[in-house]
Amino acid sequence: MKNFADLLIEAIKKKGSPICVGLDPRLDQLPPYIVEKNKKKYKETREAVAESILEFNKGIIDAVHDLVPIIKPQIAFYELFGYEGVRAFEETVKYAKEKGLLVISDAKRNDIGSTSEAYAKSQIGWNSYFSKEKEPVIGADAVTINAYFGKDGVKPFLELCDNDQKGIFVLVRTSNPSAGEVQNLIHENKTIYQMMGYYVDSWGADLTGENGYSSVGAVVGATYPKEAKLLREVMPNSYFLVPGYGAQGGGAEDVKPCFNKDGLGAIINSSRGITFAYQKMDFDDNAYAEASRLAVEDMKKDLAGVGVL
Amino acid sequence: MKNFADLLIEAIKKKGSPICVGLDPRLDQLPPYIVEKNKKKYKETREAVAESILEFNKGIIDAVHDLVPIIKPQIAFYELFGYEGVRAFEETVKYAKEKGLLVISDAKRNDIGSTSEAYAKSQIGWNSYFSKEKEPVIGADAVTINAYFGKDGVKPFLELCDNDQKGIFVLVRTSNPSAGEVQNLIHENKTIYQMMGYYVDSWGADLTGENGYSSVGAVVGATYPKEAKLLREVMPNSYFLVPGYGAQGGGAEDVKPCFNKDGLGAIINSSRGITFAYQKMDFDDNAYAEASRLAVEDMKKDLAGVGVL
Repeated sequence: MKNFADLLIEAIKKKGSPICVGLDPRLDQLPPYIVEKNKKKYKETREAVAESILEFNKGIIDAVHDLVPIIKPQIAFYELFGYEGVRAFEETVKYAKEKGLLVISDAKRNDIGSTSEAYAKSQIGWNSYFSKEKEPVIGADAVTINAYFGKDGVKPFLELCDNDQKGIFVLVRTSNPSAGEVQNLIHENKTIYQMMGYYVDSWGADLTGENGYSSVGAVVGATYPKEAKLLREVMPNSYFLVPGYGAQGGGAEDVKPCFNKDGLGAIINSSRGITFAYQKMDFDDNAYAEASRLAVEDMKKDLAGVGVL
Repeated sequence: MKNFADLLIEAIKKKGSPICVGLDPRLDQLPPYIVEKNKKKYKETREAVAESILEFNKGIIDAVHDLVPIIKPQIAFYELFGYEGVRAFEETVKYAKEKGLLVISDAKRNDIGSTSEAYAKSQIGWNSYFSKEKEPVIGADAVTINAYFGKDGVKPFLELCDNDQKGIFVLVRTSNPSAGEVQNLIHENKTIYQMMGYYVDSWGADLTGENGYSSVGAVVGATYPKEAKLLREVMPNSYFLVPGYGAQGGGAEDVKPCFNKDGLGAIINSSRGITFAYQKMDFDDNAYAEASRLAVEDMKKDLAGVGVL
């Protein structure tokens, strides 16, 4: 049976790129014409912000959905506007799926026992209540996970990977300056991020699909290419979600070690570099979606230059 | 100047207990009369669930607010019902604060850079947009943190601890069976959870208040008393948030090592054991709040027996 990785690979081949578009809206960078319109309609409320974010996201999705396999909204930027922001997040996921995109909820969730189960259901699963059966909550295809709790915190997510073609991306090596404080500690000649890599590999061992890739992926920052190469060996069957391209400093050469020899095995995320390209390109604000499409096409060429799919 | 720990100690002394009440609502355990009433009003919707949760929480808060210093809603159980659930979470925090309680948002959040800042603002800080200045989002007094990212992910939270009397509880040693897979790995003769303890101690070094406790606390599971004793030495100035009392198996003797000799230094969480006491005590469902008060009084006696405040 096909797993999440198979669906992802199918989409990558169809769209011809391994690009993930990060939707991390910032109110002060949204096109002014969108914000002003919603402010007029909803006054100076969180609802006005939420509606602006949603309208902006829909514009980006419309512009890039035929070029990229997957998007990744970062939930923190939505939670910043309370439950209204969360509503915009849910609507964004729904709209992207209607447009044939896969969606990663970038939420870095995890906990233990029944709490973890609640997160799993909320992010990538279904909830049932009253007479309703299997109603998606956020309904994303995959979610990012922080596995400091060990396997039992991850288990409810693994069950959804197994039964419902869902995926997870476990934080292994993050791209921030102080990532090493915990991740570079050494256990028996292995770093903690390597150890986390071994866990990811083992958790995914029974969850490989038709293409040989498991539905348990890893977050591997593009800012450490040497480490990416090492982690590729530790987790040969895992998809890497690679942040840090563009705005955070990584380029195509830096992300190349995240891929396997088959040209598969990684998706490269860019957020600001795509969504707010209109500012950098000095386009009018009402041409923000066209600018994002051009930025994706540039990124596609850049990645093709190092021979990855 | 007073910090979060000072506010907490003040509240502990005033209420005469170090008890934290966990609000982890489960639809199938809510008093049927509340659920039926809201189902009649809102039909079989998420709104009906959210309103039921909120009504239930208010009943618990009314019943225990003079006996306990602090409550801890676990956000996963609210997110399970989408943005309507998140609204109930926000309203719960607001109501608890109106009743003079401190609130920990149990959200296990963290990320890097501006994403982490968005989480910090959303959970314990303020947002400003349009002409609004400093409007709280969730507005909790403290939040639980997963620090796998190292210090720079924690920094936006530390700034709110420093400037706004807010607090954080960093995951150090969790109470679940597979916690050790990551937390018990050994770096230079020290476990990863000990290393995390050292970080917590250092991050809080400049954030101590009038009572000598810092606003950077730690989550330390009650299921490992020996480890708690060791961690008490590693983090003498940190408040411990201790889950695992009651339902998860820990008793008063087990949590004693989490306290300092001054009888301070820890708050002990109980969730189901208090909120769903009416089921265990075989009370009518409309007496659920009284049952929760009795459960708190029992827990208070139990803890007093081992001489902690």
